[in-house]
Amino acid sequence: MVDARRADVPVLIDGLQYSNWSEAIFRQMNAVGLACVHVTICYHEDFRETVENVIAWNRRFEAYPDLIMPGRTAADVLAARDSGRTAIIFGFQNPSPVEDDIGLVEVWHQLGARFMQLSYNNQSLLATGCYEAEDPGITRMGRQVIAEMNRVGLVVDMSHSAERSTLEAVEISSRPIAITHANPAFWHPALRNKSDDVLRALGQSGGMLGFSLYPHHLAGKSDCTVDGFCTMVARAAELMGVERIGFGSDLCQDQPDSVVEWMRNGTWTRAKDFGEGSASDAGFPPQPDWFASSLGFANIVDGLRTVGFSADDVARIAGGNWLDFFERSFGPAP
Amino acid sequence: MVDARRADVPVLIDGLQYSNWSEAIFRQMNAVGLACVHVTICYHEDFRETVENVIAWNRRFEAYPDLIMPGRTAADVLAARDSGRTAIIFGFQNPSPVEDDIGLVEVWHQLGARFMQLSYNNQSLLATGCYEAEDPGITRMGRQVIAEMNRVGLVVDMSHSAERSTLEAVEISSRPIAITHANPAFWHPALRNKSDDVLRALGQSGGMLGFSLYPHHLAGKSDCTVDGFCTMVARAAELMGVERIGFGSDLCQDQPDSVVEWMRNGTWTRAKDFGEGSASDAGFPPQPDWFASSLGFANIVDGLRTVGFSADDVARIAGGNWLDFFERSFGPAP
Repeated sequence: MVDARRADVPVLIDGLQYSNWSEAIFRQMNAVGLACVHVTICYHEDFRETVENVIAWNRRFEAYPDLIMPGRTAADVLAARDSGRTAIIFGFQNPSPVEDDIGLVEVWHQLGARFMQLSYNNQSLLATGCYEAEDPGITRMGRQVIAEMNRVGLVVDMSHSAERSTLEAVEISSRPIAITHANPAFWHPALRNKSDDVLRALGQSGGMLGFSLYPHHLAGKSDCTVDGFCTMVARAAELMGVERIGFGSDLCQDQPDSVVEWMRNGTWTRAKDFGEGSASDAGFPPQPDWFASSLGFANIVDGLRTVGFSADDVARIAGGNWLDFFERSFGPAP
Repeated sequence: MVDARRADVPVLIDGLQYSNWSEAIFRQMNAVGLACVHVTICYHEDFRETVENVIAWNRRFEAYPDLIMPGRTAADVLAARDSGRTAIIFGFQNPSPVEDDIGLVEVWHQLGARFMQLSYNNQSLLATGCYEAEDPGITRMGRQVIAEMNRVGLVVDMSHSAERSTLEAVEISSRPIAITHANPAFWHPALRNKSDDVLRALGQSGGMLGFSLYPHHLAGKSDCTVDGFCTMVARAAELMGVERIGFGSDLCQDQPDSVVEWMRNGTWTRAKDFGEGSASDAGFPPQPDWFASSLGFANIVDGLRTVGFSADDVARIAGGNWLDFFERSFGPAP
């Protein structure tokens, strides 16, 4: 495996992946120097089903102790970096593992979850998803759950939520929130990308945006260039502040198309939903050639320097900002 | 036990109860001639917990075969009447037993459920509850689930839902829906009571309203008179049509106050919610003396005659309308 690490990037962090986990993928993470990946352990699963996904990760930690380790704190990320491994942080793209029981918020923090989206495309018990026709904002239960997440140190993630719900989450949450995987709509006006209003509110409140490498979120989709991507990062840095941005690739490496169909449809509909795709283009879109795996982060780091970021800013964007955010966010409220 | 049956009421039906079930309560139902009671088997329970409530009812059917029997069709109600028993129909006040799995709609019909509220006070995955600040209407999943409920013969109940969601449910559902337990807001403007717009839409679409005897839904609350109640019924009959109304007493006989606290708070909040009550009046309100148990239906039947309803109309309101509605609603879509 090529060593793609960059000496000018002290900590490299990916704010979201949902790959078809394997030794080969973990070795790519190590090779590029990823000290941490936030991995999705729930799209539609309920409490018990998500526990099964924790068990699957526990088996992986046992099987590949030289490649990966559990990540629950910023210190774990530094320990992973120092031993050449990748710390794995758990998160949910849907609040379904909390079901309708606010007591499960703390239980999930105990089990290692550190991010939870308040909604995934559809209306949830807490907030509205970006595919609903109407967005009434944070619900009664949502206000209670945000307070509880703030208390225990489970980060609110609004990547798949609708605009008003997202702005209200920024406002209601007493601690900064995250949009772990999305891009600015000014660059590519996809339903999942975020308005200037949202990005500005996120930046001003001390939150974080992770830039997505999922083709439906990229200008030019699969044909997007690394230069185009890095130019967008520079504009976002001006809008939000260079301390408020990082990566959240949304990489779904080696997944069959049945997985994206399940992501979109779960068990909530009998009609077929195509999400960001369409009937004629229903599967996973091909990744840009410069980001086919985690190794592509080396290309992005080069690209960020090319568009003019200083070495310090590249280090921030590549992982320093996420590390600071983890430090502030994952413990109990002060 | 007094025989409180009325010869002029061929079928007496209560469209909702959640009592602390006992032999004494079943004997009162039989004594007043209740051929059918729709009982709530879920306020906050998930699929598995609600199955536990089905098991509890299966044990009651076994223990009291001379008093109660399962009710799944209009024919079951007539069989109960003919044998002097009460048919028990299952329903949910919250769609939580369907979780996020549309396949559970048909499973619940197979297990005997015949009514399901799309929301209970709060926002659900399907619709908005009457205590939310905003009501965006029926959600994406809600539209799918209504179609599936229509297909299998599970009745949409909007008793605890917010106004816009309710009007949209009437519109979206291809079969008439019900509001099993609420009163007109023109009589008592409680949050749970229904506007003229809702009542008119419900009546015109062939739906049903069950009049509540829960004190928070009554003008004068616990001091409401039977004459006041029956005068309200007469006004509602003019608004909706005398074929569109029945009873849905919301009787919670012999329940401790811990039950109303659980109804309001479930596990969704860490702050205390008082619902229709208040911190200083948190428990179940006392029933009017003329409706302390199912035996009170005899007083209401008298009252309906006193305010001028014909014997035919009394028979309709007391149960004939619900029976017709069950006949049209509980089987698969034609």
